[in-house]
This record gives sequence, C-alpha cells and structure tokens, in this order.
Amino acid sequence: MNWREKLTRVTHQNNSLLCVGLDTDAKKIPPFLIESSATPLFEFNKAIIDATKDLVCAYKLNMAFYEAEGLKGMEALERTVRYIPKNIFVILDGKRNDIGNTAQKYAHALFETLHADAVTINPYLGKDGIAPFLEYKDKCSFILCRTSNPSAHDFQDLTVLTAPLYQVVAKKIREWNTNNNCGAVVGATYPEELKVVRGILGDDIPLLIPGIGKQGGDIEKTIQNGTNTDGEMAIINSSRDIIFAGKSQDFADHSRKKAEALRNDINTHRP
Amino acid sequence: MNWREKLTRVTHQNNSLLCVGLDTDAKKIPPFLIESSATPLFEFNKAIIDATKDLVCAYKLNMAFYEAEGLKGMEALERTVRYIPKNIFVILDGKRNDIGNTAQKYAHALFETLHADAVTINPYLGKDGIAPFLEYKDKCSFILCRTSNPSAHDFQDLTVLTAPLYQVVAKKIREWNTNNNCGAVVGATYPEELKVVRGILGDDIPLLIPGIGKQGGDIEKTIQNGTNTDGEMAIINSSRDIIFAGKSQDFADHSRKKAEALRNDINTHRP
Repeated sequence: MNWREKLTRVTHQNNSLLCVGLDTDAKKIPPFLIESSATPLFEFNKAIIDATKDLVCAYKLNMAFYEAEGLKGMEALERTVRYIPKNIFVILDGKRNDIGNTAQKYAHALFETLHADAVTINPYLGKDGIAPFLEYKDKCSFILCRTSNPSAHDFQDLTVLTAPLYQVVAKKIREWNTNNNCGAVVGATYPEELKVVRGILGDDIPLLIPGIGKQGGDIEKTIQNGTNTDGEMAIINSSRDIIFAGKSQDFADHSRKKAEALRNDINTHRP
Repeated sequence: MNWREKLTRVTHQNNSLLCVGLDTDAKKIPPFLIESSATPLFEFNKAIIDATKDLVCAYKLNMAFYEAEGLKGMEALERTVRYIPKNIFVILDGKRNDIGNTAQKYAHALFETLHADAVTINPYLGKDGIAPFLEYKDKCSFILCRTSNPSAHDFQDLTVLTAPLYQVVAKKIREWNTNNNCGAVVGATYPEELKVVRGILGDDIPLLIPGIGKQGGDIEKTIQNGTNTDGEMAIINSSRDIIFAGKSQDFADHSRKKAEALRNDINTHRP
C-alpha cells in the first residue's frame, strides 16, 4: 500500500492526527520494568502501543534513544516496529543524511531492513543526498524544514548572507570551538572552498576531508589548501579506492599497497 | 587522552594524514569472505586494519553501511571499533543531528556506547543540536561545512536568499516532490513559520509537527496553520507528555488518557 493511502486510512479509522513519539529513554521508563524484564524498552513500547493503538495515526521512533543503548536498543527498535499493528503509520526519526551512494544505504536500512513507512532526513547536503530516499515511491520522506528547537534560527531563519552559507557555517564552527574540540568536514572536490574554510578556521581546528579518489579530488591542492601551517590537522579520507582494491584471498595486500602509495603521495605535498 | 594529543601522536608515529574509510559495503566485499565467514563484515575490516594500521592516522566508519545490514551490521561495527589498535584515531561518520535533549542521546551512543574518538554531525539545527556533542571535551566533533557531493551547492553555496533559508528549503521540497512522497518537518513552536510552509507546500504534502507539549507549541494554532484545507496531512507528534505520564504498573493507562485527551483536543480545532 502507498504511504498516502495508509496514512489517510488510519487517520479516518482512528479519527486522529496524533502521532505518539516512542522516545523510549531507558533512564525514564518505570523502574519496575527495568527490574522485571530482560527487554524493558520493548516491553514499555508494547504496553504503550496496546494502550494507544486506536487513538493514533502514527508512531514515531526517535532512533537516538535506541542507539544510546547499543545492540540491545536496536533490537528493541526492530521488535517494536514489528509489533506495531500493520494499519498504523510508522515513522523512523533518524534525521539521516549523506552523499548519494551512502544515502542509498541509509534508505535501505530504514525502508527495507527496518520496514519504516516514513523517515526523517536532513536537507543540508542538497538533492543528491535526498534522491535515494525519494526513489522509494511508496514510502514518505519528511525533510527537516523548520525544526522546533530554539537554535533553529541559527541557520534556518537566515535571510541575509554576508558570504556563502558554508562560510557562515565555518564562522559558527570557529565561534562554537570554546572547548577546542570542533572540526569541520570539507570535500576535497572543492579545493577553493577548502582554502577559504582553512582561512576562516585557523591552524588549530582539524579538517576531515573526504572526496579524493573515486570522487575526483586533487591530492596536491587538497594538502596545500587543507593542512595548517605545520602541514597537519587535516585528515584525508579514502574509502573505496583502498578497501576494495582486491577481490581475492590477498585483497588486503592490495589495500596496503594503495594505502602506502596514497600516504606517501600525500606526504610529498606537505610543507 | 585528549583527541588532539591522540591524533597528533599517531600522525607523527605513522607519518600519515591518511584516514582509511571502512565503508564496508556487504555487496562489495570479496565473495569468498561471504561464503567462508559467519561475520564477513568484521573479518573484512580486520584484514584491512591488519594490513594498514602502520600507514594511517585514522579509520573512519560510515555508519550507513553497517546499519543497512541490521543488527549483524551494528555488531560488526562495534567489534571493528574494539579491534582497532588503541593508538589510532577512530571517527564514526554518522552525520547525526537532532534537537538538544535528543542530540545528547546520539552523543552518548557514539562517544560512550561505541567509544568513538570523533564523530561527524550536521549543523542544520544550529547550536543547541551541536552543544551536547561539544560537551565531550576530550572528543572531537567534525561539523559538516562544505560536503564533497555535487548537490552541495543546493544550499551550502547560497549567497543570496530571497526568503529565510527554511522557506528556500520548503520550495526545494515542493520541487523535489515529483514522486509525491516528500513531507516536511516543521516545529509547532513556530506557528507563523508553519503557516508559511503550508502555504508553500500546498495541500498534498504532509507535515510532521513535533514541539507541542513539553516544548510549548500551541495546539489550536498548530492545527489551523499546519493541516491542509481538509484538516488532514498533518501528523502531530507528542512524546514525553504521553509516554512518561505514569511511573507505576498502570503507566500505560495514564498514557492512554493523555493520548485520548490530546487527540480530542486536536480534533476540536480541525476544520
């Protein structure tokens, strides 16, 4: 059934626009459940679902509360989704986002492995990070637009930009760095932007730089523009080119050769 | 050890800025591993780590590839992080983001449950969504600034805004809705913005609306501004107020009462 049909049907059936958020914080559930059950998160959700299933159009599971409990939490999430009656709309609220080929993996995880009817996703990466979710035509993707928190205004309300948005973000990162533990992600595919961001952030803030290799980022420019004046505080990531270099028993030897060559190539360009 | 000390030390020790991305796609690892091992993702990572650990400063695990495999994948992720030699910097690349109290759960999941040295996070929600990560003073948080994908320019390069950014996003959502499966998240705490977004999106695009209850969103305005002309396509979420209404054996009865009252309250304001 298409998501719209399912949502409309349950809205009419239960005469309800209400979604109960199963933000099942292990620290807030009744203490007797923790003592009496081996699977308290699931037992809690089961009781809430049994008590409210004729009153809601949807359940929304915020994934953070389950991930915080590790594998046990993820097991509770899976069991809960399976337990929810089939007529009720299930939203997995994970606010996922990534570049295209990786966003596809998140879409698979949420829609296929976990069987969500709908998900929440973050738009900051633009269309190609959203598209893999939208390819699931029978599912619905809720894109963050104006969030409910006080700091929503930091970026979402901006009406005047004194510089491109990524530079506004870079300036905020510098401002937020009071504990000396901020870094920034900047793609090697955009060497000029990398230079600008390094200029804004100074020498102490590390950059995590994906995008060399398959994505086409140039190593020399990446090192010149991304490292600090000591030639450090830049972490140059390569994934597919290295880890999938071989397919046979000796695949790791091929990976080692690729990694060694790339490390050395990077080092020849450090100041 | 502080993240900077750890990163600097391994950078010098291995003379390397290279980070190997363990984007361990189950569909791309050598076929013989899938056939010969009960834990192929972990075995693959183990071999790559053994072959490259003297060449890198960091390993980065993109969580999407593990989540796509369900609980088995998450177990492989946990085991891999434990297997990585203690001197090497571990980045968990999950691009997480949420409002403050929930972002705290993600920070806990990544830094405490999964023992990352560093994480990636998305800035779209502003400072209060970032702060819980930055409270971990010995850990590093890489904030997305300029991503490596082609669509990075959709928002990150904006220099002129014809309307507040959230409205620019809303217009993109309408544009991206070619499969009729986009929704938008708008907080009930901002009723005027809700009205504007509903205006931009028209009648067919559903809104997921958190922020009533504990966060203070007004129900009447939320319904008036958030539903479509049929009084539908708005999903009004409430979490803590409902699920934590009781603490004793009869907790679910209290939840039911709260849910019923809220559903009815919502319905009195529907057109």
